[in-house]
Order: sequence, then C-alpha cells, then structure tokens
Amino acid sequence: MAQHPLHAPKRNGTPANSSPSAPSVRQIDRQKIDQTAPHTALRLSGGRVSAFDRFSLRQILAVLGNPLLRLILWNGEEMNPASGQAVATVILRDRSVLLKILANPDLGFGDGYSAGLLDVDGDLIEFLETMYRTCVARNGGRFRRLVFNWLYRPQANTLSGSRDNIHHHYDLSNDFYKLWLDDEMVYTCAYFPTPEAGLEQAQKAKMDHVCRKLRLRPGQTVIEAGCGWGALARHMARHYGVTVKAFNISHEQMAYARARAKAEGLERRVEFIEDDYRAITGPCDVFVSVGMLEHVGPENYRQLGEVIKRSLKPDGIGLIHSIGRNRRGPMNPWMEQRIFPGAYLPTLREMMRVFEPWNFSVLDVENLRLHYAKTLEHWLRRFDQHAEQIRQMFDERFVRSWRLYLAGSLAGFTTGFIQLFQVVFAPGTSNEVPWTRNYLYAGEPGA
Amino acid sequence: MAQHPLHAPKRNGTPANSSPSAPSVRQIDRQKIDQTAPHTALRLSGGRVSAFDRFSLRQILAVLGNPLLRLILWNGEEMNPASGQAVATVILRDRSVLLKILANPDLGFGDGYSAGLLDVDGDLIEFLETMYRTCVARNGGRFRRLVFNWLYRPQANTLSGSRDNIHHHYDLSNDFYKLWLDDEMVYTCAYFPTPEAGLEQAQKAKMDHVCRKLRLRPGQTVIEAGCGWGALARHMARHYGVTVKAFNISHEQMAYARARAKAEGLERRVEFIEDDYRAITGPCDVFVSVGMLEHVGPENYRQLGEVIKRSLKPDGIGLIHSIGRNRRGPMNPWMEQRIFPGAYLPTLREMMRVFEPWNFSVLDVENLRLHYAKTLEHWLRRFDQHAEQIRQMFDERFVRSWRLYLAGSLAGFTTGFIQLFQVVFAPGTSNEVPWTRNYLYAGEPGA
Repeated sequence: MAQHPLHAPKRNGTPANSSPSAPSVRQIDRQKIDQTAPHTALRLSGGRVSAFDRFSLRQILAVLGNPLLRLILWNGEEMNPASGQAVATVILRDRSVLLKILANPDLGFGDGYSAGLLDVDGDLIEFLETMYRTCVARNGGRFRRLVFNWLYRPQANTLSGSRDNIHHHYDLSNDFYKLWLDDEMVYTCAYFPTPEAGLEQAQKAKMDHVCRKLRLRPGQTVIEAGCGWGALARHMARHYGVTVKAFNISHEQMAYARARAKAEGLERRVEFIEDDYRAITGPCDVFVSVGMLEHVGPENYRQLGEVIKRSLKPDGIGLIHSIGRNRRGPMNPWMEQRIFPGAYLPTLREMMRVFEPWNFSVLDVENLRLHYAKTLEHWLRRFDQHAEQIRQMFDERFVRSWRLYLAGSLAGFTTGFIQLFQVVFAPGTSNEVPWTRNYLYAGEPGA
Repeated sequence: MAQHPLHAPKRNGTPANSSPSAPSVRQIDRQKIDQTAPHTALRLSGGRVSAFDRFSLRQILAVLGNPLLRLILWNGEEMNPASGQAVATVILRDRSVLLKILANPDLGFGDGYSAGLLDVDGDLIEFLETMYRTCVARNGGRFRRLVFNWLYRPQANTLSGSRDNIHHHYDLSNDFYKLWLDDEMVYTCAYFPTPEAGLEQAQKAKMDHVCRKLRLRPGQTVIEAGCGWGALARHMARHYGVTVKAFNISHEQMAYARARAKAEGLERRVEFIEDDYRAITGPCDVFVSVGMLEHVGPENYRQLGEVIKRSLKPDGIGLIHSIGRNRRGPMNPWMEQRIFPGAYLPTLREMMRVFEPWNFSVLDVENLRLHYAKTLEHWLRRFDQHAEQIRQMFDERFVRSWRLYLAGSLAGFTTGFIQLFQVVFAPGTSNEVPWTRNYLYAGEPGA
C-alpha cells in the first residue's frame, strides 16, 4: 500500500467558517480536527507494520460491517482507501493503540483517542454516527463485542457506591461546568420550542414543560430526587410558588445550589439535602426527578418506586426524566468506566419496574431524543470554545476524552441509539389527573 | 336476624329524575334498579338459610375486605346491615346463586347476576367500583381469587381461535350495536375535548386526535389492523386524503364497513380486507390499530411487532391504542369467558414486547382512562334507553349480562383498575419524528 498524505474527502463543499453566526457542530468539529491533525503534521511514531497488524485491522473493519473508513497507519501507510466515499480517516499514530484495541476492545478505541494515539480526520460526530448505525443495523449480538461491547456490572449503586460514582463525574469542578452549561447550570436535556431556540431559552422551556406536566400550584410541596446544581428547584420555587426539598449526593453541586439559592433569596423555599434518594420521606404533592434514573441502576428501580410510594400523597403526581433505550443492553463500557461509573440506560420496559409494583399509573410518556442531540450540539460548541481553558484546568487527555463523550452522546441521540423519556405518573387510584394535555401547549408557538 | 323490607340508603339526596336533560349514569342506574327490584317485589324464592350459608357469606365478605354492603337472602333475612352506610344491597334471590359462587368464584357472581338470581339494589356502578377498590387496595394475591379471580389461558388466539373469539362478540348483530354506539359506529374509547362533549363529537375528536398523532398527509398509504365497522378508515380517507387498507376478521363488521364506504363514495380509497393481522404486508407510511391489541394475546405481541416491522416504511409512523393495566394480571374471568373470549389487557411493560425486539422507538404514550369511563357512561345510557328493544332481539339474560359488562368496565376505568394507552412509535432509526407535540393541540379548546 502506498503512503499517502492526508486528504480525507469533505462530505460537502462548505468551508468551515461559512456561517460564523450559527456554525453547526459539524463545521466546528471539522475546524477542530483541521487544527489538531494538519496535513503536514500527522505525528506518526513510525515503525514497521506487520502482516498480523494488517490482518487484525481488516478483521476489525469486517466486524464493524466494513464502514466507509480510511485508515492511516503509524508508518504512513493507507488502508481501505474507499475511493472518495470515506466518512472519515482514522489515524493510528502508534502501533500500541492497535494492541490496546485488540487487548481490550471495550476501552481501546476511547482510551486511544483520549491519549491522542488515535485520531479521526473528518467529522468526528459523523464518524461516530456511522459506528452507531452499523451497530444498530447489525442488531447487536456478536458484532457488538468489538467497539460497542457491553458489560454490565450490578451492585455498583449501593449507598457508598453511588457516592463514589457521582463524585467521579459531578464533583469535577463547578468552574468547569460553568464554562459550557447554560447560565442556570442545567446538565440535562433541554426542550427547544423550535430547533433555532438558544440553550438558555431551551433550558428554561424544559423546566416550564416539566412544571406544567406536574401542574404545580402555589403552596404545594415538591420533592426532587437528584437536583444537580438546583436549577429546577429554584425555578419551581420562584415561578410556581411551591416549596421544594431537593436531594443530591454531589457535595460540589449542593454547595453551589445552596449558595445560589441564598443569593437569590430562595433559601426559605428550597431546602437542599445532601443525601441519597433512598433517604427520602414524604409527604409531598409532587415528586420529580430529572436525570437521576441513569445513575440508579435497574436493581434499584423497585426500591425507587417504593420511596416514591411512601412519599407521594394519594392525589399526587410525579415525573421521571431519563436517558433510555429502545432495546435492552448495558452501557457502552468506555462511557461507563471513564465518564459515568455505575450508569445504566433503561428501556421503557425496564423503567416500568419503578411504577408497576406500586400500582402507579403512567399518564404520559414523551420521547425528546432529538432535543438532547440539539442540547449536546450547544454544549459541544461551548466546550470547544473553551477547550484551551479546560486544557489548563485539567489536561489534553481530559479535553479529548470529554469531546469524545459529548460527540458520542450526540451521535447516540441522532442515530436513535439512545432516547430521552419523560414519564408522568400518578398513584393508580387517583382521579386527580389531567383531562387532556392541551394545557401543556397553551403558551407555546404553534399552539 | 330480622327480615327487612328493602330500604337501601341513597348516597345523596338527588331524586332519580332531577336532571332529565343530562342524567348521570348513576341516576339512570338507580332508576333502573328501582324498576326491577321494587320495594314490594323482591321475588325471593324462599327456603331455609342454613348456618353453613351464613358462614359462607361471612367468609365471602371477609375475603372481599368487608365492604359496606347489605345482603338480603332468599328467605328475606338481612345480613350486614351497615347502619345506613351501605354502598348497595345485594339481593340473593335463591340459594342456588350462593352455591354457584362457592362452586365457581370466577363466574358465579356474573352468571348469577345475568340470570337474575342476584341483584344489586342501589348504584350498580358504585357497587362495582367498591369491589374494584377493595381488590386494588388489597393488592391482589390471595384476595383476588374470589370475585375477581384470574385465569389466563394461553394459545387462545391462533388464527382459527381468533376468528371464533372475534365472532363471539363482534358478529352479534350490527343492528344491536347501532342502538347504542355513535352514528359512525366507533366501539373504542372516545376523546372528549371537554367532559361535556357529546359522544358523536368525542368519537370524531378521537379519530382526529389519532390522525394528528400520525401526522397524516395526502397521498400516504395507511394500514389499519382491526378496523371495526370502518369508521377510522373512512375518516382518514375522507378528511386526510390517504388511502387505507383495513383488516378485520369480523364478517358482520366488514360487510357493514364495505357497504357504508361504497354508499359514501370512498370505496376506491378504502380497501376492507377480511383477514387476520398476521396476513398484513406492506409497504405503508402509517400503521394504526385502535382497540385490537386486547384481542391479540401477549404470546403474539412479538409477532405483531414483526408484522409492523415488515410493513412500515423506514420513515413511517405508527399508533397502537389499547386498554391496558398498571399491573400484570389475566382478564377478569367472567369478562373473558362470557363477553370477550381470548382477550387480555397488557401493562405498558408487556406492550413493549411489540416494539422492543424490532427496535421501534416509542415517541408518545397517552393514558386516556377517564375518557373511556366517560365513553362508557354514554354507551350505558343509550343501552338502557334501548333495553326493551335489546331484550326483544336477545333475551333478559343478555341485557343483564351486557349491563354488567358495561357497568363493570366503567367502574374499572374510574377506579384505575384498567387504563387506556395510546402509543405512538416509529422505526428506531427514523429521524422523521415530530419535534414537539404542540401541533396536536393547535385546534383544541384551551390551546
């Protein structure tokens, strides 16, 4: 095979900066890659490529369903030229990354990318979408083993296990999250009334969408399980006149939440309790949990339902908002081990374990998958704008690893590999349920 | 115990005819019972009441959770006077009905009621609601055995089994159903924009609600599985410019559907196919099934999903509308054996067997339970208005048995014992999904 300079075909003719006012994620991504893997600086380690190496790489491509990928190996050699149709070019800068992938298919790609031993020239998101689509099209099974292998470890979310797991991700640094989240610090799927809405607007719209679904009335008592930096709790107290008890086991988040609630004069209406959801007791009129179920673990769903059962009044209402899936399967192991330890994304079927044993009635389910893809576009754009600051706060590996996590999540939502479910429920014996859903849309454009 | 004349306390002071323009179901029911079980004509068979009989009746009441019921036995003796708080008085006209209940708790009550050996003086619906609530409150298990016992018989819905099952109910007589359904002959849950809407309006609103959820566009091809008398198929073709292939195995319904479509000039846009859903092939843009899943049986959900998978285009959309439950359990055996052979009401968890194996993405679930209670109020009122005609078409046992079925279903929905789920879904890889749901409510009051 001939040694080639890097000339990965672009999939459209738009230059990277053609629309500076509202660049798409793909344009930003291309810009980024153009900087880190310029034509003249492939930064290859050199060294021999053996017949075993080539055989292994062909096997990997075959297992992946032979996607339209070019490879550049550490000696500059090109594989799988794909005659101008390639989605992207994968650069293996050093033989060690191939050995990493072979030794641990679950983690090798992600770790190699994070370490800069492997790069994707072209559109990272489009590359990841192709990987997801191949995986989805092949319907899992034996083909999933290699890159998106599955490994589920139960017992991870004991009381102390949960604390460790949550600490790993959410206690990184409030200053870090401030760089790329919205000004209310909401780290869950936003709700874009139209795709063009801004992130700040969409996060407020999401909180209002949730509050409307819960039909909040002044004077009610709300329990929130897993409250992040407290944005929803503050929003409910400020705009809907309710009092909120908000639970979270991330110490950094709770410090921020308390300080901000105090600064905004809400400390008497929002109580932030640094404790596990399993410690929740009622009574409350409303139970809400946005983005916590992913960290609960399916072995604890029944217990979560029991907590809600003992806390929620007989005429109460609740909402659980969670990333989920169409089909059952453990987390992507790289994501689970490097980014979200203990996380698990349930199907709707699995989520029913929260509700069914306790005779909760599911009133409404909404799938907001594409809204999470849009949310991640905004986060990724802001993340990239602050990449240099983040590199200084952590290091290059951290920046690359988080870019892969954000881009991979985005690709997961656009390809339908993961979903976002908002589930409204009430005690099965309550007739205090909405008659129709039209009140949800009274104030929205198009309604 | 003293022999008592019938003086079951009324639960409110409203006379039966206080609101003749819009009588509530409860008023009508009370009126009806006042006619069939008048003070002076208990129609008791007489005969001795043994200590064994009294013991057995006390055991039955205990198993039911000692609801506030009075009993009048066949010798006129009163049990359980409940000092003015009784929901209703149950009249056992003959000892044989007690033996029937003891011999076959699953069927004894319903069969005894149908045969006129047992009556409920007071509000039949309120009585049934009390029975359901006791059952729900006791959380099933051993307490369910007696009146609402469960017996699930698999293998009932083979191709020929389904034909027999459907024939039993839907081929009774079109003229019978015309007496109490709306003028479009819709025999599924309506959608009442407001609780005061009429049945005709609400059935049209339901069809529009379904069509909007499916985002029908002129020129599209729709497959409908289980089309009843063809109302939705005709509505879609007439108002949304689509062509419809509608499947049903009820011969009587299909004859009516074809004749009516022809009379309305729709025969070129709606094809009625007398065949099983398992014979469906595509391609279609839209798959819809309203009120069929109840007759599919959980053992066939996966196969139904496969039928949809092979028929629905990759960018298509589908909707399944079905009675369901919060918690798993077989049908009420009297309902299953006397009214709807082969029927089964799934939980949402069980419904996911249709979608999950085929990577369908659930986009939207709406629970319309109270709308079905309201629909049944209308049906029961019309049924009662035509009771004499129905008695002439069939017999007294039929009238009583269908009243019990309609009143029991109504009570099932008001007590939360059964649900109505509308599930919108799309192939998991399709991004041709609605951005928000606000378009559903653009034309509704309150939006």
